[in-house]
Amino acid sequence: MSLATTLQVPGRRQRRREETEQRILSAAVRLFEKQGYTSTTVEQITEAADVGKGTFFNDVPSKDHILLSLFGMLRVEFDHLEREAREVTDVRAHLRAFARRIVTAHGRPNILRNVIGIAMTEPLIGTAFESLVKRARGAVTRILEQGLRMNQVRTDVPVEILARNFQQFIFGTQVLYSINGGKEDLQEWLDTMFELFWNGAATRPSSAKQKQAKRK
Amino acid sequence: MSLATTLQVPGRRQRRREETEQRILSAAVRLFEKQGYTSTTVEQITEAADVGKGTFFNDVPSKDHILLSLFGMLRVEFDHLEREAREVTDVRAHLRAFARRIVTAHGRPNILRNVIGIAMTEPLIGTAFESLVKRARGAVTRILEQGLRMNQVRTDVPVEILARNFQQFIFGTQVLYSINGGKEDLQEWLDTMFELFWNGAATRPSSAKQKQAKRK
Repeated sequence: MSLATTLQVPGRRQRRREETEQRILSAAVRLFEKQGYTSTTVEQITEAADVGKGTFFNDVPSKDHILLSLFGMLRVEFDHLEREAREVTDVRAHLRAFARRIVTAHGRPNILRNVIGIAMTEPLIGTAFESLVKRARGAVTRILEQGLRMNQVRTDVPVEILARNFQQFIFGTQVLYSINGGKEDLQEWLDTMFELFWNGAATRPSSAKQKQAKRK
Repeated sequence: MSLATTLQVPGRRQRRREETEQRILSAAVRLFEKQGYTSTTVEQITEAADVGKGTFFNDVPSKDHILLSLFGMLRVEFDHLEREAREVTDVRAHLRAFARRIVTAHGRPNILRNVIGIAMTEPLIGTAFESLVKRARGAVTRILEQGLRMNQVRTDVPVEILARNFQQFIFGTQVLYSINGGKEDLQEWLDTMFELFWNGAATRPSSAKQKQAKRK
C-alpha cells in the first residue's frame, strides 16, 4: 500500500471495507466456478478471500447474499446499457457484443451455469434472478427500439417479443453448452445462434440483400 | 381390479411390480413439480405413492434413480422418433409438434425446469442428461436429414448445427419461461421461437415465398 493511500485516513475504513467485499466476491465466484454453488461453504469463501470469519462475518452473511451482490453488479451494467441505447448506431453489432459479453466474456460460462441452475431450484435466488433478467430485457428492448428508429429492425413483430427471443437464444446456448460439458467452442455456438436470431429480427430488406448476394 | 386380471396369475407379480414402479414415478414427478427436486425426500415419494418403504425399498433406491428412470422413458421416445424419421413428410410440422410435446405436453414445464436445474448443479444427473440430450439431438438430426432429402431444409448449413440450434431454442424457451415464474403463455413463446428457428433452417425458396405473400 502506498504512503498516499495510507495517509487518506478519512475514507480509509470505507475503502478497506470495499476492498474486502471485492475480495470476498472474487473468491466466491472462483469457488462457485470451480466446485459449484451448492458445495461451496461460507467458510471456504472467507478462507479463500483471506478474511477472518469472526471479524468480517457481517460482510459475508450467506452465499445467497454473495450471489445477490453479483446480481447487483450486473444490474448496474444493464442500466448503463439502457441509458446508452439511443447512441447505438449499429444495433446488430451492439447486441452481438452484448451477447458475447454476457455469456463468454467476464470469462465465466461456469458462473452463469451455476446461477441458472440455482435460480431454477431455489425460490429466493429465482425471484432476484427473474428481476435481473427483466432488467436486461428492458435494456435489450431499448436497443431494439433504437434499431427501429434507424430502420435496422423489422417493424411487424413487437420489439418486446424480439427482446425475449434474444434472451431465449442466450439462455438456450448457455444451458445446452453447459449440458454438453462445456467442451465445445462456446463463441462459435453463440455466433451461429445470434445469426439465427438476427436473421429473424432484422428488417426484411437486409435479408433480401443477402439472398441477392447468394444468387450471384 | 377385474376378475380376468386377478386370474392371470403367472404375470401377476411382474405386473404388480410394474404398477408399483409407475405409481412411484408418477408420485415423484408430481412432488418434484410441486415442491422441487431438492426438497423432495424419498419418504415423501413412497408415502405419496402409497408404497410401504420397507417392502418396496428396492424399487426406490434414491431420487437420482427416479430421475434416471424418467430419462430412460424419454430415451425410448427419442429412439422411436429417430426410427420414424424417414417417414416424415412435413418436417416443419413434425419438429414443431416435437418441440411442443417436449416442453408443454406431458403437461410438465415444471419437471423440465427441475431437471435442467439439477443437471446443471449435480454431476451425476448432468452426465445422464447430457447423454439424453445427445440422443434427442441425434433424432432431430435424422429428421432434418429427411428434410434435406425432401428439399425442405437449407443445404448450406450442416444439419448437426441446425439440430443444435433447435435444442438451444427449446432450452432457452424453457429456462426463460421458468425464470419468469411460469406466468406467461408458454405455447406462444415456443411457437414464436420455433418460427425464428424454422425461418433460419428452411430452404431459402420457402422464405422467399413468405416474402411474396407479404408484399401482396
